[in-house]
Amino acid sequence: MTHEEIPDIVIGRLPIYLRELNRLQNEGDKVTTSSHELGQRLGISSAQIRKDLSHFGEFGKQGTGYHINYLVEQLRQILHLDIIWPVALIGAGSLGTALAYYNGFMPRGFEIQWIFDNDPGKVGREINSIVVQTLDELEETIAKNRVVIAIIATPASAAQEIVDRLVEAGVNAILSYAPLHLTAPNGVHISYSDPVTELQRMSYYLVP
Amino acid sequence: MTHEEIPDIVIGRLPIYLRELNRLQNEGDKVTTSSHELGQRLGISSAQIRKDLSHFGEFGKQGTGYHINYLVEQLRQILHLDIIWPVALIGAGSLGTALAYYNGFMPRGFEIQWIFDNDPGKVGREINSIVVQTLDELEETIAKNRVVIAIIATPASAAQEIVDRLVEAGVNAILSYAPLHLTAPNGVHISYSDPVTELQRMSYYLVP
Repeated sequence: MTHEEIPDIVIGRLPIYLRELNRLQNEGDKVTTSSHELGQRLGISSAQIRKDLSHFGEFGKQGTGYHINYLVEQLRQILHLDIIWPVALIGAGSLGTALAYYNGFMPRGFEIQWIFDNDPGKVGREINSIVVQTLDELEETIAKNRVVIAIIATPASAAQEIVDRLVEAGVNAILSYAPLHLTAPNGVHISYSDPVTELQRMSYYLVP
Repeated sequence: MTHEEIPDIVIGRLPIYLRELNRLQNEGDKVTTSSHELGQRLGISSAQIRKDLSHFGEFGKQGTGYHINYLVEQLRQILHLDIIWPVALIGAGSLGTALAYYNGFMPRGFEIQWIFDNDPGKVGREINSIVVQTLDELEETIAKNRVVIAIIATPASAAQEIVDRLVEAGVNAILSYAPLHLTAPNGVHISYSDPVTELQRMSYYLVP
């Protein structure tokens, strides 16, 4: 089993399964679940779920389904969440600040540990107990701490240069909130979050 | 040509094309572009772009490519962006506040006009010149103003109830930042933004 064989679209669904399994854990009234129940809760066919999971092994038994805690542990291992990944955040504007305060990262495997901004009015201030550093310190901090994951919450105009600098310093996974397509060498993963492209995708279906 | 015939994944790429065409407009040094150039800039094959656009008509000419301003106008019409859609925001925490201040909505077809929260400490305050309303006023405001698009920036625990209330009041497109799958009747569109699922999708590829 090599990673390359599994379509990225399958990988993209695993965190959704994990998130729902965590919800089942929190609800606390079941030890096992089934592809049928998961599918019902997620609006995904049970066949799809079984097929996706089958890429990684046999997690359930015909008739008894999946042991929730066991499947959670397996998915966490597959997604490399048995550690907390330290994350660098670039951009301490209102979105960056909201991300820095977001308490949903740590329980799910990530922790923003460094924040960078080029605004002298922000550098030196604390956001959620993290001192904002100047962008001049980006490369040294990334390299010294072997940071491989970063979140970009800068204006679009700054984002590509930041990506170039992050990649050069050793980052190979970037979540960007800047509303533009970014380029990076092969092997560097970039995910995007742009509320407007999401809204526009939906407005297509609406009658003005 | 009916909407149903065009795969949603194609619709999802149109806003990306539009965004890049807007960038070409802003760069200002070209009148035309090509599927090749767009593809290069977006990391998408030119054949894919031509195929996607061909669902909607003939926008370019062999040899001369696409007239940028014309294609922008066409895409705006296809995506129903020839109006500014008024949007209701639910949740005035740090993320909701960042969204309320985001200046990227209006130029691209959307405007947050109402903000709701159930925290008495927030109700009545202004965020970017919008007075935060109590959730008790949600249904009446949505219905009276015929709001059809909403953004949810509440905790996960509140989100499903909010969806139910929004849909009941007439909303049929929802962008949710709450980290859970939401259910809604057929015909209601829900998009999600969860930074952690994006990060987990990438951590799969990383070596811990």
